[in-house]
Amino acid sequence: MSVMLYEGKAKRIYETDEPGVLRVVYKDDATAFNGEKKEVLQGKGKLNNEISSRLFQQLKAHGVDSHFVSQVSELEQLVRSVDIIPLEVVVRNIACGSLVKRTGMERGTKLAAPIVEFYYKDDALGDPLVNRSHIQAMHLAEEAEVNQLQEKALRVNEVLVPYFAERGVDLVDFKLEFGRTAEGTILLADEISPDTCRFWDQASGESLDKDLFRFSSGNLQEGYAQLLERLT
Amino acid sequence: MSVMLYEGKAKRIYETDEPGVLRVVYKDDATAFNGEKKEVLQGKGKLNNEISSRLFQQLKAHGVDSHFVSQVSELEQLVRSVDIIPLEVVVRNIACGSLVKRTGMERGTKLAAPIVEFYYKDDALGDPLVNRSHIQAMHLAEEAEVNQLQEKALRVNEVLVPYFAERGVDLVDFKLEFGRTAEGTILLADEISPDTCRFWDQASGESLDKDLFRFSSGNLQEGYAQLLERLT
Ligand SMILES: Nc1ncnc2c1ncn2[C@@H]1O[C@H](COP(=O)(O)OP(=O)(O)O)[C@@H](O)[C@H]1O
Ligand SMILES: Nc1ncnc2c1ncn2[C@@H]1O[C@H](COP(=O)(O)OP(=O)(O)O)[C@@H](O)[C@H]1O
Ligand SMILES: [Mg+2]
Ligand SMILES: [Mg+2]
Repeated sequence: MSVMLYEGKAKRIYETDEPGVLRVVYKDDATAFNGEKKEVLQGKGKLNNEISSRLFQQLKAHGVDSHFVSQVSELEQLVRSVDIIPLEVVVRNIACGSLVKRTGMERGTKLAAPIVEFYYKDDALGDPLVNRSHIQAMHLAEEAEVNQLQEKALRVNEVLVPYFAERGVDLVDFKLEFGRTAEGTILLADEISPDTCRFWDQASGESLDKDLFRFSSGNLQEGYAQLLERLT
Repeated sequence: MSVMLYEGKAKRIYETDEPGVLRVVYKDDATAFNGEKKEVLQGKGKLNNEISSRLFQQLKAHGVDSHFVSQVSELEQLVRSVDIIPLEVVVRNIACGSLVKRTGMERGTKLAAPIVEFYYKDDALGDPLVNRSHIQAMHLAEEAEVNQLQEKALRVNEVLVPYFAERGVDLVDFKLEFGRTAEGTILLADEISPDTCRFWDQASGESLDKDLFRFSSGNLQEGYAQLLERLT
């Protein structure tokens, strides 16, 4: 069998016979609050793989490239191998979560312009918010690359906000990861799923995302399945 | 007597007969960890007033304007009244304090370029780190003003680093506040003192600043007095 390169909290990454191509296997594990809360939720991996595949395809159709090559099974994608930049790029359209705690803004406040945040992807440090001068001091990315991350993240937002709005869903916020290809170009990577986005049903206001698990406020798989239904 | 406009943790601000001019009275109160640790340290107010007055004069001599008008007594300064922008602008030359916690950098690491950080000045929220898109969303300052804050803070650093180095002291990091005058120009305000800077004696490595109080690692007044001596 193929060599496992990395096991994360939500996915396993395997080598393939094709150079520069990896196989991602979505897991059913759910974690929150930096790993403090953990559970296995049967069916989550399949739902995230389906949703993430569709969203990468949707982005591709709008000219936004990503590592996504193809969905090869219920749990698996083929993706281009990249060197992940250890920054979580968060885009926000509506105030929620840590933004509310940080700024005192009221939960649900519609932002006049999207907020972009960079978090240093480091579980031991609790994924802290960093600014551009931290990113330079830590040599995480060049200034020009940070500009690209910001532009690409906003472009993803421009494509996905109307896509979800047409389906009765508010895209509240989401986290992206990017990587460098062997040629040094920056490519959108990782996943875009209800594990990494906040989705609010416009009709009911209900969460269709990992907040169902974070706050034990409903059945995660039902929420994710409802979201997937909107996309099909 | 004159009307007290504001009492903060370290100073009281009074009206004067002259329009646009305020009287600042430095207090002996020491607070740390967002007010969790508190003490009255006899003599601190006088030392901070002396040090802050000298630093504002030094900056003035290098073309950096501030609210400082004159030192009028042991505990008092006259300053220009400004509308304080609720941002704490932090400049760092050496990794210490919250930067170490945030980034995992080793304490004492000399930074290749100064780090600039903006914190939202709000005790209830614990003065959180904010980035430029938070500042816009919260309407704390215009984008052009943030550029000015950054430039002015770096200019202060350029003046003060060699000034202290010549006196055997490393300027590790410091916090500035700025305000808008009635005419809308941005002016350096508040104080620059061992309460708001980290100073390390180059010979001994000892702190000559509020860390003496924060970590009960030595006599604060002795450290501040030593620092003042270097400036005279
Ligand atoms: N195209 C790719 N090439 C290499 N690594 C990737 C790619 N896409 C995602 N990764 C990485 O795969 C790892 C596994 O994902 P995940 O389980 O979500 O990990 P984590 O616990 O870090 O969130 C992550 O470190 C992610 O950054
Ligand atoms: N020139 C000025 N005009 C108006 N307010 C000022 C000026 N300089 C400083 N201040 C404000 O005076 C207040 C008192 O200072 P301080 O005791 O240090 O307060 P704090 O508890 O907020 O740190 C602070 O809110 C500070 O921003
Ligand atoms: Mg992940
Ligand atoms: Mg103060």
